Amino acid sequence: MRMVDLIEKKRDGKELTAEEINFIIEGYTKDQIPDYQVSAWTMAVFFRDMTERERADLTMAMVHSGDTIDLSEIKGVKVDKHSTGGVGDTTTLVLAPLVAALDIPIAKMSGRGLGHTGGTIDKLEAIEGFHVELSNEQFVDQVNRHKIAVIGQSGNLTPADKKLYALRDVTGTVNSIPLIASSIMSKKIAAGSDAIVLDVKTGAGAFMKTAEEAKQLAEAMVQIGNNVGRKTMAVISDMSQPLGYAIGNALEVKEAIETLQGKGPKDLEELCLALGRQMVFLAKKATSLEEAEQMLKEVIHNGKALEKFKEFIASQGGDPSVVDHPEKLPQAAYRIEVPAKTDGIVAEIVADEIGTAAMLLGAGRATKDSSIDLAVGLMLNKKIGDSIKAGESLVTIHANRDQVADVVEKIHSNIRITDHAVAPVLVHDIVRQ
Amino acid sequence: MRMVDLIEKKRDGKELTAEEINFIIEGYTKDQIPDYQVSAWTMAVFFRDMTERERADLTMAMVHSGDTIDLSEIKGVKVDKHSTGGVGDTTTLVLAPLVAALDIPIAKMSGRGLGHTGGTIDKLEAIEGFHVELSNEQFVDQVNRHKIAVIGQSGNLTPADKKLYALRDVTGTVNSIPLIASSIMSKKIAAGSDAIVLDVKTGAGAFMKTAEEAKQLAEAMVQIGNNVGRKTMAVISDMSQPLGYAIGNALEVKEAIETLQGKGPKDLEELCLALGRQMVFLAKKATSLEEAEQMLKEVIHNGKALEKFKEFIASQGGDPSVVDHPEKLPQAAYRIEVPAKTDGIVAEIVADEIGTAAMLLGAGRATKDSSIDLAVGLMLNKKIGDSIKAGESLVTIHANRDQVADVVEKIHSNIRITDHAVAPVLVHDIVRQ
Repeated sequence: MRMVDLIEKKRDGKELTAEEINFIIEGYTKDQIPDYQVSAWTMAVFFRDMTERERADLTMAMVHSGDTIDLSEIKGVKVDKHSTGGVGDTTTLVLAPLVAALDIPIAKMSGRGLGHTGGTIDKLEAIEGFHVELSNEQFVDQVNRHKIAVIGQSGNLTPADKKLYALRDVTGTVNSIPLIASSIMSKKIAAGSDAIVLDVKTGAGAFMKTAEEAKQLAEAMVQIGNNVGRKTMAVISDMSQPLGYAIGNALEVKEAIETLQGKGPKDLEELCLALGRQMVFLAKKATSLEEAEQMLKEVIHNGKALEKFKEFIASQGGDPSVVDHPEKLPQAAYRIEVPAKTDGIVAEIVADEIGTAAMLLGAGRATKDSSIDLAVGLMLNKKIGDSIKAGESLVTIHANRDQVADVVEKIHSNIRITDHAVAPVLVHDIVRQ
Repeated sequence: MRMVDLIEKKRDGKELTAEEINFIIEGYTKDQIPDYQVSAWTMAVFFRDMTERERADLTMAMVHSGDTIDLSEIKGVKVDKHSTGGVGDTTTLVLAPLVAALDIPIAKMSGRGLGHTGGTIDKLEAIEGFHVELSNEQFVDQVNRHKIAVIGQSGNLTPADKKLYALRDVTGTVNSIPLIASSIMSKKIAAGSDAIVLDVKTGAGAFMKTAEEAKQLAEAMVQIGNNVGRKTMAVISDMSQPLGYAIGNALEVKEAIETLQGKGPKDLEELCLALGRQMVFLAKKATSLEEAEQMLKEVIHNGKALEKFKEFIASQGGDPSVVDHPEKLPQAAYRIEVPAKTDGIVAEIVADEIGTAAMLLGAGRATKDSSIDLAVGLMLNKKIGDSIKAGESLVTIHANRDQVADVVEKIHSNIRITDHAVAPVLVHDIVRQ
């Protein structure tokens, strides 16, 4: 088999066989096929797309390029949740204990934040003593005992995807539905769960800027998941404005606690229930999404979800008293209000730019090697559709520096106040097979 | 400027500026832009094409990537001829002295054969003593004195094209009209002539398999040439069967001599006149193509073309007596007839396969480093449309080995004899601006 023939086959719009796709991915992982051939191939994929079968084969070829996590020792249906990344997205911190409280095993591998998006591992580390370094045995044991554990990226998972993504990033082939879908799904599948719930974000703060693009990606991922034997569903949710009010690690932990207490932001709670009911349904703990939602509401109301969060924190070395005393979380030295300049209705809060404003404070990483400040961030006081008076606080800045003119400037230029505006729909669509 | 942005710009169907194209070609030539970005870009070009302006800019960027030949010291309009490559294509050997006999300067840089196609330099070296190693000064001086000189590739011409072609060859991006056209035209322009006549072949033995593809390529090249200030015309000619009867170096020299004597194969003569009249017209020696053709026929009939060939041979160290005594050319040890198996009309002579049969005898190179035998080759005794009887010779093999079963087999399986057939049209089209 020659790579140039496979490039030409794809270029001419023909379907590659599973064997041919394996040849490409295996050869590339082992440095037997050079970058310049693979980049020409990915550009051909960009123009010619991939069939349903090719997408599934590409995903599995990337899964088999490295280690896979074996969760077979964990009893029950393991359900994973994945978000395509947003600003102020605290859903994992809420969902993991919420769903685990219904005896559904949550064995989650999470990442750190980069750029304007946050990461679950960073947020959990805002809790004193919490650590995510567990061996595979400890991880499995933890989930069997507590129904919940979160670890950082471990092992050599999907090296083909890492290599391919780095290449796509510099060759103009990131923005391809089959390549994005197989990249995300290969990582989720290698992580070992039986079922996957996807939160595909759309809007300014998301990779997919329009709801149609997000739906295409969601459909592609749901199709791949189900075609390779993992029950998969997706929610398409709004990321034109940040989710909830908090943006920043400790601030988001506090918001997650409030949400588990039934006192969180309406949008964050709504999204957690939309994702959570799919998780409960896929775990076969409920026979309908409605029933699943009822079960979730019950463990919020009866306090079991909050208790599970404490149990989870303690089990990974953290101090569970932060749940009742969130003032124990890292606190920033300064709280600076950003008053509105005019009366009106908030019409726009550009999510990625506001995420970047929080990053400027130290809440996020500009590059992979940046260090972050867990205490700092932003608290939105208003969201789209809220009315505000001139002088009233729009945002509270939590900073460890007293000069924040750059952040204030960024906030003002990315929050628009007009005569009338309505809050955007949070859940755009549900995708299932 | 970042290469990834230029890849995405082309990918999204936008037009690159001259500055951006220069950035790519200059950066690639200097190894500042890696192969994997350039291959993604060429694949995007494959799908998105290039505008007329981009094609001209790409051509000139490649011209400026290396040396250019300065022919300004040569008096008169220098006209070059380029063929996209065929089997038994002896036109240069005929045309160069034919046109030079009309006092039009022919300063030609030629190449060697590869695969099923022959090369002018190899053919000229079949003449004892002939050499193509001339310094630039000798080259110019020779043309001023004799109106004709042929040299091998010299200097570092269009290194960008060489690098780009090698990359395209392994990344499925050879077959792109803007890339083929700019590749050919950059070499011709760097070689310094004022006007260019192109012979774009079509059919089994050609790179462009259909007349429509050949026309597209011809139009693209004529457009580039005229846009960068070189008068350019093109002939689209048939290469479904070999041109003339001879395939092999010494055999083709003999056929060229016969053609200069007005006794050559009808198709070879017709094509030489079709190309030659464009050369004479572009050199402004005639005011119409008809007048140009009359002038060419005259120098054949009055022997001046043949005399010019002798003068040319002598001026480059060769023995001019081969023109009157072609038996002095290298002779093969064996002449083996290949008789037809049935009565009928010759309907097909698959040009590339017949070229490969000659290569098997040693007439051509399988790889760039192969050595060749100037004496061997094939003489077709019939062409498409000719009738033949079973047992009559179809082809005469000129070989330096007596076992030629492989060649005979290849000939039989690539010459088809049927009930009725007509000769293909030789000149499909003329392209001019």
